[in-house]
Amino acid sequence: MDTKTCILCNETGGRVLMRSEYLRVIAPEDKVFPGMIRVIWNEHLSEMTDLEPMQRSLLMQTVCQVEDLMRQVMRPDKINLASLGNYVPHLHWHIIPRWRDDVCYPESIWGIKQREVSSDWISKKEALASQLFQFLESRW
Amino acid sequence: MDTKTCILCNETGGRVLMRSEYLRVIAPEDKVFPGMIRVIWNEHLSEMTDLEPMQRSLLMQTVCQVEDLMRQVMRPDKINLASLGNYVPHLHWHIIPRWRDDVCYPESIWGIKQREVSSDWISKKEALASQLFQFLESRW
Repeated sequence: MDTKTCILCNETGGRVLMRSEYLRVIAPEDKVFPGMIRVIWNEHLSEMTDLEPMQRSLLMQTVCQVEDLMRQVMRPDKINLASLGNYVPHLHWHIIPRWRDDVCYPESIWGIKQREVSSDWISKKEALASQLFQFLESRW
Repeated sequence: MDTKTCILCNETGGRVLMRSEYLRVIAPEDKVFPGMIRVIWNEHLSEMTDLEPMQRSLLMQTVCQVEDLMRQVMRPDKINLASLGNYVPHLHWHIIPRWRDDVCYPESIWGIKQREVSSDWISKKEALASQLFQFLESRW
């Protein structure tokens, strides 16, 4: 995959909450896991160790800023952080709020579904997600 | 879960390759994903943002040192990094070497199995993993 075919080189990846010279914070507005955030490195490279140490530090500081605000606003039972990129090998971090009664818990969000959730459950989490997105937009 | 019942407070979590005052690097010696490494924070806390910024930095520097050496020694197609802790909410990072022909690729290792791998495939990866573990033990 090169910069011509990479979806994260050609599309924002979701609602842009912050964009700097180096990275952007986006909300994919996931319908099953409301509040999920991605921090995407702008340049097309695939691994953390493709970055210089100072760049890694900047990226993880941003991930932790998102996590911090996500915990304050959404009060999830757990935070999941992951940089996988098996489908899209363009460096990006998932910051995912998890609840004991969400669709997959305690499995990862890429694991086997454990239960159904009600539309009321989704609506409540979407309301919290909306607050989080506003805070993140106003933070930077 | 408290320090009395937490498995990562009461067991090493695998073969210890390095242990410092703050964290340890262990090889769970996974039979399906050879070479997987975990970096475990020694103190019982669950999220990155439970750490002070300098501690986060130390932890991620260690994760990146492992990733760097894993790429050099094992030459995987992709690295997967994750801090989930849904089952064991004691801060730990997975550093996972991935290959296009491994059991789950391109799904996460917590996803649906995509194929069988031969015992020869496993043996070759285990030989690389063994080299990696030796390098990690001698590095610190």
